Amino acid sequence: MTEKQKSAVLDHPKYYQISKEIIESIKKGKIIKGAKVPSENEIIKNYEVSNTTARKALQEVENQGWVKKVKGKGTFVSEQTIERSANKILSFTDNMRQSGFVPSTKVLNTQVFHRDQSLSIQGRNYTMKGPIFKMHRLRYADAIPMMIEVRYISLKFCPNIDKKDMARSLYSIYEKDYNLELKDIKQVLSASMIGPGTMEFFDLKDPIPGLKVEGLSFCGVEMILEMESSLYRGDKYQFSVNAN
Amino acid sequence: MTEKQKSAVLDHPKYYQISKEIIESIKKGKIIKGAKVPSENEIIKNYEVSNTTARKALQEVENQGWVKKVKGKGTFVSEQTIERSANKILSFTDNMRQSGFVPSTKVLNTQVFHRDQSLSIQGRNYTMKGPIFKMHRLRYADAIPMMIEVRYISLKFCPNIDKKDMARSLYSIYEKDYNLELKDIKQVLSASMIGPGTMEFFDLKDPIPGLKVEGLSFCGVEMILEMESSLYRGDKYQFSVNAN
Repeated sequence: MTEKQKSAVLDHPKYYQISKEIIESIKKGKIIKGAKVPSENEIIKNYEVSNTTARKALQEVENQGWVKKVKGKGTFVSEQTIERSANKILSFTDNMRQSGFVPSTKVLNTQVFHRDQSLSIQGRNYTMKGPIFKMHRLRYADAIPMMIEVRYISLKFCPNIDKKDMARSLYSIYEKDYNLELKDIKQVLSASMIGPGTMEFFDLKDPIPGLKVEGLSFCGVEMILEMESSLYRGDKYQFSVNAN
Repeated sequence: MTEKQKSAVLDHPKYYQISKEIIESIKKGKIIKGAKVPSENEIIKNYEVSNTTARKALQEVENQGWVKKVKGKGTFVSEQTIERSANKILSFTDNMRQSGFVPSTKVLNTQVFHRDQSLSIQGRNYTMKGPIFKMHRLRYADAIPMMIEVRYISLKFCPNIDKKDMARSLYSIYEKDYNLELKDIKQVLSASMIGPGTMEFFDLKDPIPGLKVEGLSFCGVEMILEMESSLYRGDKYQFSVNAN
């Protein structure tokens, strides 16, 4: 354990440390979906803690969405689903980090073309002027392929972006390398099968439903910075929405 | 034609009337998905209008999302998808009306129970106190089954709602009959198969991916008015989202 990790542990109460250990076991697949996590009594015995601490530890694991308590039966590992708020501008990278996963990216292919790219969305047709940098990427949470995407990026706003390391977070490239900020995102969410030709990327043996996100991002009024078409695996990813 | 219809037609320019007729043909299935709508030249000939009017008519049909122009090939009927903004509080009824469809509802079954109902959403567990009115409904756009839903409504906030006509819009019942307004909605959107046991409701012969919406609505701070679990057909329904 590094000094930093030690101090992080010392800063947290006992119940929190126990909850972290249980969550780690779930993340590593030591306790699989549908299986029981240690009971209050087992935690009391294994960690030599009070029943209050044991209860709080399990409560914390449940609050973070990793398990679900079933009355009289025990506490079971839930479906491992990552959630993103659809209302906020958030990079995949930050989304994964906030969900407790290590994000990574595999660039599948890239291309520079000179024609314009159009997208019809929310009842309007948008055109991004060429030249455009197009790339296919596969995005991971830990070792799990979560999403496959095609992105079209304006080379007018981001000259030479095709020469950059595309395993990096695009949002941070926009910000740090081009001083551009995403101001507005328009997207459409729909349901789409992840079937033959696509499911192999997700290491799936059978088709599953997925969530398709099509959209465009503006870095200013009528300034289209990028267009995207992404497919998230429906068994591990969902969007949260608030309306008021 | 009624007097009201006549005046509606007279109030609109010619190109708009033509666009309405084309849209009606698509809605009635006279021109199916992927098929060509009349070309500019055909419109000029059939309606005895100028090429400006013909072009504007086709543009209007495209602007409303019913067709897509393919350069040098013609104008084709698009996938007929209804869209809803995920950021706004909008009843199914109003959503369908705004999309140009006539909404209707079939109540499948109803039940009153006295236990509490819980829902874990956005990392928090919510409990709505009993008694609760539970109902299954199938919702239509024109004659197309679009969505199947289970709703749990607080009988504490809406006493005797189980005796009302549930083919009505719930939002209007809340407002008119109980003077309650939805202040805040928390939902999760995920992908889910519409398979055997469910696809029959949608008149589908084969499974298709659907969009599942689970959520709860508040009529005040910590006042849960209803919980829902809805399944929208993925081939005809999608959500739009804006983030900024």
